[in-house]
Amino acid sequence: MPGLSLALPLALLLQASAPAAPPSPAEIVAAAPASAWIDIPADEILVMDLRGDRRVVIRLAPAWAPAHVANIRALAAARHWDGQAIARVQDNYVAQWGATGAERPLPPGIAAAPPAEFDRPAGGIVYRPLPAPDAYAPATGHSADGWPMARDATAAWLPHCYAMVGAGRELAPDTGSGAELYAVIGHAPRHLDRNLALVGQVIAGIEHLSALPRGTGPLGFYATAAEQTPILRVRSGEAVPGLPRYQFLDPTSAPFAAYAQARANRRDPFFNRPSGGADICNVPVPIRARP
Amino acid sequence: MPGLSLALPLALLLQASAPAAPPSPAEIVAAAPASAWIDIPADEILVMDLRGDRRVVIRLAPAWAPAHVANIRALAAARHWDGQAIARVQDNYVAQWGATGAERPLPPGIAAAPPAEFDRPAGGIVYRPLPAPDAYAPATGHSADGWPMARDATAAWLPHCYAMVGAGRELAPDTGSGAELYAVIGHAPRHLDRNLALVGQVIAGIEHLSALPRGTGPLGFYATAAEQTPILRVRSGEAVPGLPRYQFLDPTSAPFAAYAQARANRRDPFFNRPSGGADICNVPVPIRARP
Repeated sequence: MPGLSLALPLALLLQASAPAAPPSPAEIVAAAPASAWIDIPADEILVMDLRGDRRVVIRLAPAWAPAHVANIRALAAARHWDGQAIARVQDNYVAQWGATGAERPLPPGIAAAPPAEFDRPAGGIVYRPLPAPDAYAPATGHSADGWPMARDATAAWLPHCYAMVGAGRELAPDTGSGAELYAVIGHAPRHLDRNLALVGQVIAGIEHLSALPRGTGPLGFYATAAEQTPILRVRSGEAVPGLPRYQFLDPTSAPFAAYAQARANRRDPFFNRPSGGADICNVPVPIRARP
Repeated sequence: MPGLSLALPLALLLQASAPAAPPSPAEIVAAAPASAWIDIPADEILVMDLRGDRRVVIRLAPAWAPAHVANIRALAAARHWDGQAIARVQDNYVAQWGATGAERPLPPGIAAAPPAEFDRPAGGIVYRPLPAPDAYAPATGHSADGWPMARDATAAWLPHCYAMVGAGRELAPDTGSGAELYAVIGHAPRHLDRNLALVGQVIAGIEHLSALPRGTGPLGFYATAAEQTPILRVRSGEAVPGLPRYQFLDPTSAPFAAYAQARANRRDPFFNRPSGGADICNVPVPIRARP
C-alpha cells in the first residue's frame, strides 16, 4: 500500500504526520489558519444534481468569462438543463452535458453568440507566479481570486487543468453560448487553451463525471440515449438550501506559498527524490467547505 | 458538439477531413505506412481480464525496469494475480491491484526486493527530443523503442503519463516487487517520477480502470471487499489465444515527427490558436492493433 496521495485537496486532509517529517502539501493546507481562506460567494456556485443522488458543484469564473457566466446563470434560473443529460464521456478527455443553441433552442434573454472569452488583458491581474517552465505559456501561476492561470506579455487565460469546465462550441470561435458545457476528466488538454472559453471548475463531485462509463460512439458520445446520465436540476448556489460555504486558499498567503513549494518538492517520508518543479495543473488551488 | 478529440490515438482514427484542411494528429497517424509501425513482441504484453468481460492490455518495459518485469512475468506464469482484485481507485490519480509481498506471500523465485529501477543511464538511448520545456526534467522525448521519456545529463526515466503502470511499494525505495501495480488515471503525477519504478503502460482497455467507481476509504481504497473488481486472470500475451499483434509508431520515423509537430500545433479546422508546444504526456506514442 504505497502512500501515494494526490487527487483534489479536499480528499487529503486525513493523514497524520510523524513528528519529525517535513509536512506534506495536504498537511500544510490542513494547518492553514482561517484567515488564509476566502469565501466563494454563493452566486459563484453552480450545483448540478444527477440522477442517483450525485451532486456536482462548480465554481464559476465571472472575472474570466463574464458573458458566458451571465448566460450560465440565466440558463440555470430558467431551468434550462433540468431533464437534459450527460451525453458524452471520452476517456482521458472530457465529460459533456447540455446542447449548443444550434441543437436545442435557447430561452429568451440568452446571448446566442457571446464574445470569444478565451483570454483577457493581463494588465492588473495580481497573481503568484509558479517558477517551473511550462510547455504552453511563457508564465503560469495562481491569481489572487483563486484560479490557475497562464499568461504571456499581454494576455492571461485559464488553463485546461483537471476538472476545469468550458463552453462547448461549433467550429466558429463565437458559437459557444454556455448551454453546452464540458469538464476535463483526464490529463490536462492544454492545446485547448485559448481555443475555448473556460467558465469555471468542478470543486466537489468530479468523480460523478470522471467515473461514468465511457461513450462508445465517436468522440465518446453515448451510442444510445439510455446510456446517458440524466440531469435532475442545475441551480445557482443561492437557490440550494443547506449548501456548504466553499472557500479557497488565498494564493497570496504564506500557507499557499508553502503548499506550492511542497507540491514541487515533496519531502514527506514516501518521497526519495523531490522533482524540484511542478506544472500548473499539479498545483490545484485548495478548496474546502468552511468548517 | 465540439470536435474535441484527444484521448488515446487508437480511438481517433475515424474522422474524415475536409480536403483543404491541414491533417489532424489522428489523420497523420492513420496515414502512416506499414513500414513506420513496429511490432510489440507478445512476451512484452500482459493481459489482465476483469470480471464482466473487461480486458486490460499492458505493454511491459523490460529495457526500463528489467528486474521488475522479470518478476511480473514470473508472477503471471504462477497465476499469482488470479482471484485478486482492483483494490484502490483514487480520482485523478491511480487504480491499483494486487498486493505487496508484505501483504501477501510471493511465490518461489520472485525477487522480493529488486533494485530500485527508477531510472537508468542515459548514454546510448536513441530518442526523438520534444522541444517544449518541461516542469520536471531538463529534456523529454520519445525513445526509439517507443516510450515517452525524460532525462537529465546522466539518467533517463519513464514519466508518469496517463495509463503508465508502476510498481507500488512501501516507504523504503526497494520494496516494490511488482506484485502490486497501479495505473495512472488522471493528470500526470510527475512528482512520482524517479520515486517509483514504472514497468509499462496500458495500451488497450484503460477505461476499464479509469471508469471504475472511486473508493471511499483513505487514498481511494475501497471500504469493503464487495466494492472491489475481481481479477479473473493475468497472463503473458504469449499465453492468450487470438490476441491482436500490437504495434507502436516508430518515434524515429517521419510520420511520428509530423504527428508530434501537429500535437503541438493543431491546425485542423476546430483550432484557432495553435499552442506551439506540447508536454510529453500530451504526445502519447500511437499504438494500434496490426491491420
